[in-house]
Amino acid sequence: MKKKIIIINGPNLNLLGEREKSQYGSETLPTIKKKCLDLGKKLKLQIKFVQSNIEGELVTQIQKSRKKYDGLIINAGGYTHTSVSILDALLTLKIPIIELHISNIYSREVFRQKSLISRAASGIICGFGTKGYIMSINALNKLIKK
Amino acid sequence: MKKKIIIINGPNLNLLGEREKSQYGSETLPTIKKKCLDLGKKLKLQIKFVQSNIEGELVTQIQKSRKKYDGLIINAGGYTHTSVSILDALLTLKIPIIELHISNIYSREVFRQKSLISRAASGIICGFGTKGYIMSINALNKLIKK
Amino acid sequence: MKKKIIIINGPNLNLLGEREKSQYGSETLPTIKKKCLDLGKKLKLQIKFVQSNIEGELVTQIQKSRKKYDGLIINAGGYTHTSVSILDALLTLKIPIIELHISNIYSREVFRQKSLISRAASGIICGFGTKGYIMSINALNKLIKK
Amino acid sequence: MKKKIIIINGPNLNLLGEREKSQYGSETLPTIKKKCLDLGKKLKLQIKFVQSNIEGELVTQIQKSRKKYDGLIINAGGYTHTSVSILDALLTLKIPIIELHISNIYSREVFRQKSLISRAASGIICGFGTKGYIMSINALNKLIKK
Amino acid sequence: MKKKIIIINGPNLNLLGEREKSQYGSETLPTIKKKCLDLGKKLKLQIKFVQSNIEGELVTQIQKSRKKYDGLIINAGGYTHTSVSILDALLTLKIPIIELHISNIYSREVFRQKSLISRAASGIICGFGTKGYIMSINALNKLIKK
Amino acid sequence: MKKKIIIINGPNLNLLGEREKSQYGSETLPTIKKKCLDLGKKLKLQIKFVQSNIEGELVTQIQKSRKKYDGLIINAGGYTHTSVSILDALLTLKIPIIELHISNIYSREVFRQKSLISRAASGIICGFGTKGYIMSINALNKLIKK
Amino acid sequence: MKKKIIIINGPNLNLLGEREKSQYGSETLPTIKKKCLDLGKKLKLQIKFVQSNIEGELVTQIQKSRKKYDGLIINAGGYTHTSVSILDALLTLKIPIIELHISNIYSREVFRQKSLISRAASGIICGFGTKGYIMSINALNKLIKK
Amino acid sequence: MKKKIIIINGPNLNLLGEREKSQYGSETLPTIKKKCLDLGKKLKLQIKFVQSNIEGELVTQIQKSRKKYDGLIINAGGYTHTSVSILDALLTLKIPIIELHISNIYSREVFRQKSLISRAASGIICGFGTKGYIMSINALNKLIKK
Amino acid sequence: MKKKIIIINGPNLNLLGEREKSQYGSETLPTIKKKCLDLGKKLKLQIKFVQSNIEGELVTQIQKSRKKYDGLIINAGGYTHTSVSILDALLTLKIPIIELHISNIYSREVFRQKSLISRAASGIICGFGTKGYIMSINALNKLIKK
Amino acid sequence: MKKKIIIINGPNLNLLGEREKSQYGSETLPTIKKKCLDLGKKLKLQIKFVQSNIEGELVTQIQKSRKKYDGLIINAGGYTHTSVSILDALLTLKIPIIELHISNIYSREVFRQKSLISRAASGIICGFGTKGYIMSINALNKLIKK
Amino acid sequence: MKKKIIIINGPNLNLLGEREKSQYGSETLPTIKKKCLDLGKKLKLQIKFVQSNIEGELVTQIQKSRKKYDGLIINAGGYTHTSVSILDALLTLKIPIIELHISNIYSREVFRQKSLISRAASGIICGFGTKGYIMSINALNKLIKK
Amino acid sequence: MKKKIIIINGPNLNLLGEREKSQYGSETLPTIKKKCLDLGKKLKLQIKFVQSNIEGELVTQIQKSRKKYDGLIINAGGYTHTSVSILDALLTLKIPIIELHISNIYSREVFRQKSLISRAASGIICGFGTKGYIMSINALNKLIKK
Repeated sequence: MKKKIIIINGPNLNLLGEREKSQYGSETLPTIKKKCLDLGKKLKLQIKFVQSNIEGELVTQIQKSRKKYDGLIINAGGYTHTSVSILDALLTLKIPIIELHISNIYSREVFRQKSLISRAASGIICGFGTKGYIMSINALNKLIKK
Repeated sequence: MKKKIIIINGPNLNLLGEREKSQYGSETLPTIKKKCLDLGKKLKLQIKFVQSNIEGELVTQIQKSRKKYDGLIINAGGYTHTSVSILDALLTLKIPIIELHISNIYSREVFRQKSLISRAASGIICGFGTKGYIMSINALNKLIKK
Repeated sequence: MKKKIIIINGPNLNLLGEREKSQYGSETLPTIKKKCLDLGKKLKLQIKFVQSNIEGELVTQIQKSRKKYDGLIINAGGYTHTSVSILDALLTLKIPIIELHISNIYSREVFRQKSLISRAASGIICGFGTKGYIMSINALNKLIKK
Repeated sequence: MKKKIIIINGPNLNLLGEREKSQYGSETLPTIKKKCLDLGKKLKLQIKFVQSNIEGELVTQIQKSRKKYDGLIINAGGYTHTSVSILDALLTLKIPIIELHISNIYSREVFRQKSLISRAASGIICGFGTKGYIMSINALNKLIKK
Repeated sequence: MKKKIIIINGPNLNLLGEREKSQYGSETLPTIKKKCLDLGKKLKLQIKFVQSNIEGELVTQIQKSRKKYDGLIINAGGYTHTSVSILDALLTLKIPIIELHISNIYSREVFRQKSLISRAASGIICGFGTKGYIMSINALNKLIKK
Repeated sequence: MKKKIIIINGPNLNLLGEREKSQYGSETLPTIKKKCLDLGKKLKLQIKFVQSNIEGELVTQIQKSRKKYDGLIINAGGYTHTSVSILDALLTLKIPIIELHISNIYSREVFRQKSLISRAASGIICGFGTKGYIMSINALNKLIKK
Repeated sequence: MKKKIIIINGPNLNLLGEREKSQYGSETLPTIKKKCLDLGKKLKLQIKFVQSNIEGELVTQIQKSRKKYDGLIINAGGYTHTSVSILDALLTLKIPIIELHISNIYSREVFRQKSLISRAASGIICGFGTKGYIMSINALNKLIKK
Repeated sequence: MKKKIIIINGPNLNLLGEREKSQYGSETLPTIKKKCLDLGKKLKLQIKFVQSNIEGELVTQIQKSRKKYDGLIINAGGYTHTSVSILDALLTLKIPIIELHISNIYSREVFRQKSLISRAASGIICGFGTKGYIMSINALNKLIKK
Repeated sequence: MKKKIIIINGPNLNLLGEREKSQYGSETLPTIKKKCLDLGKKLKLQIKFVQSNIEGELVTQIQKSRKKYDGLIINAGGYTHTSVSILDALLTLKIPIIELHISNIYSREVFRQKSLISRAASGIICGFGTKGYIMSINALNKLIKK
Repeated sequence: MKKKIIIINGPNLNLLGEREKSQYGSETLPTIKKKCLDLGKKLKLQIKFVQSNIEGELVTQIQKSRKKYDGLIINAGGYTHTSVSILDALLTLKIPIIELHISNIYSREVFRQKSLISRAASGIICGFGTKGYIMSINALNKLIKK
Repeated sequence: MKKKIIIINGPNLNLLGEREKSQYGSETLPTIKKKCLDLGKKLKLQIKFVQSNIEGELVTQIQKSRKKYDGLIINAGGYTHTSVSILDALLTLKIPIIELHISNIYSREVFRQKSLISRAASGIICGFGTKGYIMSINALNKLIKK
Repeated sequence: MKKKIIIINGPNLNLLGEREKSQYGSETLPTIKKKCLDLGKKLKLQIKFVQSNIEGELVTQIQKSRKKYDGLIINAGGYTHTSVSILDALLTLKIPIIELHISNIYSREVFRQKSLISRAASGIICGFGTKGYIMSINALNKLIKK
């Protein structure tokens, strides 16, 4: 049976490709989603791709992954630095979790250099632009198939 | 006339009994709710029992309590440590407020040892597991009936 | 063509006039809204006036302002002090932004003396009570018409 | 055989009912003791009730509880915030421990918002006035009888 | 009788229009003064406009305002962040006080993000360039006439 | 009737005149006591002079002053910097309290530059050597006789 | 020959008796000066009594004391907490220095609880209201006559 | 012409596979090196693979990469958290740099949660075990070939 | 004449061998005392061995050592981290002082990693279990006999 | 035409040679001034040499340098560590600025180890005693003549 | 078979006996080495004694100890306070480790009061001068022979 | 006999003139060395000029200066901010030491604004670009010849 993964995107990621392009690149979220689904097909992975600006909806999405998915990729946007609730939701999972950041948050403002959710992550990919999505799927694929 | 109280549960409490049982016990939220309502009947208290993962919905629930309830119990989950907005909502109330934590947050990670909402609480009950709900109702019952 | 501005109100501002009147005054949000719209007519400004308790909805409202409005006024309530996500949404805008506080947050509790969103603001108006709304519209009007 | 518990009171609690009544209420320690003993009879608990202003005597009392009591309630007064030695004594116990505060220490001065002893407590009851003693006995009774 | 207000300018504001124009704009202090006095005439306010580089002279000016003026606007320049003495002088006043900053100090260097004098201010206007003077007079006019 | 005051000395003050004379001078505690009692006679004050190395005994002494004395002088020695319990005891008093230090603690090691008990003191006398006892009695005499 | 002392008063002390009387009492600075000079006569001390709002003038006054006075009393007002320059001037003196505060700065706002100049003081008198001037002269008299 | 990359390993990485296997896995550095070189052949990349325990030798290796390599991967081991000198060496490069960590440093001890060198990195890969080497080469390959 | 030393044990050390054996070993304090006295005989040292849970009694014991002993070993237990008073008592001594800890306090909780009394110690022995007593006596023997 | 430079000296530097000679040497300010002017002649530099104890006067002196001088040397004395206003004045200049300290402030008390004005300085000379004046003129001479 | 131990000395210890004798005593490192080897013979221990100024060489020495030695003594000199790499190397060992300091680092400058490597040590000996080497060997001998 | 000085350069200084020219200028280290040696000839100073990327080699070079040189100039590069070992080596010297920085480290990133080695320096020259070498030699020449 096909493995299933979910890719969860947090606040403002729906604007990718439109805002601060020097920081985040010019690809839009739908383009990224398409590339992810294409890769999913190639890897025989079923991929769910979601986005929300609402912290609690992200919590709910993560909770639902407990029984339905084999792996999770999360780019939590601005909630990365402030959300104990997302961390708590991630901590309830037993599946591999990849924390993804498009920009290198560790070379930006001080308040962005602290991720609250890292302690729940299996691995972190950070600073590779939107290519990080592809890298994350490839990495997660290996983690869940071993 | 019957006194009315509201019990507000924050993010991830809908997973009680399923996650990290050593920390939170094995009772589920519906079971707890039932026990609360049963106790309510015995004490002649009308009890509303709600849960949400969304900070703003918790704010809204608290606001609504201003005119409709005689007392409030809140287990704010991960928002305990980060939400000025929930604190502000609680500060608008004139009714007794009990802050409830299932685990002993003061013996856990440093970032859990600070509650932003305590300054609005009448009393705090912390670390008694899911039995804390029963204790809170009993305590609140006395506070609102005196 | 008429210029358009949006006034965004965060959590608990729907309770204005009902809670802590010594701090926030006795005008209600609908009254304030009416005064704002009246002033808008006088200044030939089209004004949208919104409120939400949910951080992510505020993020969404701000995002929508990117193409539809010429200026933005935000009173972010309790999220002022905790929301990187609202800051990020504001940073994507190119229009003038006014940060508004009814009370003088810099003379209150320490945790209210830090605004995360100021770095995205053109100007800040703080401590003038609900009159701050009128001042903000007047100021924004000049900024967007110059 | 009857279960035995000890209630240990720290510095200045002998003045209860005489000082800062708005903070601590008007019941005196002997009155509280009587109520505790009465409840003990009802619950078939043998209750020892002690008070000392001396940190080392509290340490000694706690040590003695190791073999003689089935549960312990401690209101450590001012030593709550400063005593590693009381913490160390509590850590040697295997019986349930309830940390009790009459006032809500988490809404008072900053130096009172840190309890050194919480990491040894099973549960914490805080802010319910002198009623907290009754609540603590009831809670402890359940903990030691399960 | 005409109301009287005083506008007090701190160190380096005599250089306005000459230095760091991107930060402070190109209007000089005499031009600003003229605009203020003109507005004063229109509003039937008698306006005193002073500047000094010396902290103690600013203290003295503030002290003198106690009996002679109905409102005060202060742009304390670099002393904003370091002067307890100016704060103390302001605290002796009973008249409304507006704290004014030309640039948005809350988006600049960390040491400029703390104002020592805000706790004495009725309201704060910050980041609107030299237009802030006009806004402050209008705001003060309303405060002292109500 | 004669006014009564108590002078309470904390840990290590029994060694005065023997240890670190450059810091604390060469007068012994009995000599100081004698001088105090002599001054008491002259001023028609009844003076009690006590010393203890035990924090809890100091707490007890302070508690006893509530009903028996008209004023209190305390040199809390090393407990000055660490004792919430002594602070709490002092806070229960309604009589004038003078905090006394023989050496200038504010020019010594950092950990001595913070007094926990100052917030309960009417006045502080510090750095005048053992002469501070005489100064304190004179000052207290005026405070209790006005 | 008569000994000479100087009493130096910092910013806002010229307003004594007019502002915040609950904090600073109702005696004016001229009244205090007169009482000081009267005591000077009795003690056969020549007393100079000065006040300035300007930090640098206080520095100059202190410098001049090096050769002309036998002792110095300083109430540095708001500069107490911020002036390295006044500290440096005091450190150049060889005569006894008394640091004087009318209110108990150690029980007020945090930023008032740190004196930069204490490390230059022989002794500190704090919290005794305007009576502290008399106490300081008496104490200084003993220090310079021994 | 073939692109060339260098993989630089810091202190203690020569012990991989022998120490703390739960943290770092059981593959040895020679095995990893072989896998890297094999991948290099497949990708037509010339790969240099070095290790040193000496900070200054790592600095020298990085310096040499300025003219000889098209990309750099660095796992700086314990120097990650302490070396300004390695950061400075990396800052002199114009080629893409990948910071690599075998374990998830952001979920370990606090002193490991700060990387000094991130500000020089293009991207960061962290927590994927020794597989991170393969991921890094693949990612770097794309960065240098675009 | 025989040299005399004193070994002072602080709070909870009377429980050695009974509590947290993995941390403190299984030897009891009487056993340790016996071993110490035996070694004393062999080394021709007269050894006094005391324990108290009361900070002030430890202070008193240290004070008494000033004239009666040639060296002192102190295991201050929980007071190590909090007692300025014990530090002050130790500072009055002229004899060699050894600070002893059974466990390695520098690899335990953060609040145990700071010893207030080290600045009075000649040497520190830490982490060798109860064998540290024997090591301390041997070391002290050499210090006082040289 | 002759180049012109100004040397600005802050508080207490008028006492050079009289106070704390071990720290600051025994040369007086007039002697230093003479040496500076002599060197000026040799280098064909016109040198203005000023001193003030008043922060605001230093600000004014710096402001005046904007149009009249080609370079500036400042020894800001105690204001080095506290003056945002002097920093702001320096930031308005376009000419080279040398920050000068007679003693090595970085090896003194912690509060002297932070210079607020360094961010405006071209270069810093520190710890060379009064010879630093000569070094600064020589260095400035080269900076303004290149 | 003879047990083997290694004694590793860090930077500047090759200067023992030449520098800062009041702090470190007058014995040279070769003398110490000789005493150690002599004691080794007596205890039937084979002792390796090394010194290096280079952090990475110390790391390498520690790594080599993994298979060749039964115990390790380290005086890491200045790297004690800064080296994560040495800590990491020590953490790979399974043999007993003694951390040794000649001076009492806990009574010196603040930056010397923190040892990064203590968390890897079995025991710590500190402040006994060069005699600490002998004490360490004796202690280690017992640890490895039990 | 000719005086001898050593100029010690730390990590990455071998890249001078090649990297970040806006920060460090375009002169190479060999060019600087040549200029230094030329000046040495003119001043009749024998100059040794060394560079190393390895902390421990710098320590060794400094140690060797103890007996062979009359003065030392050190530009410790990135080790300036992190090396206790270099500080310790410098502290063993009795000759004058000049700390040299090419850029103004006090106006750069926060982690560069702290020099660990300043406490061992006689004087500091900072921010004058590569000309600082010439200034340092001239200054050192005067220090060692007086």
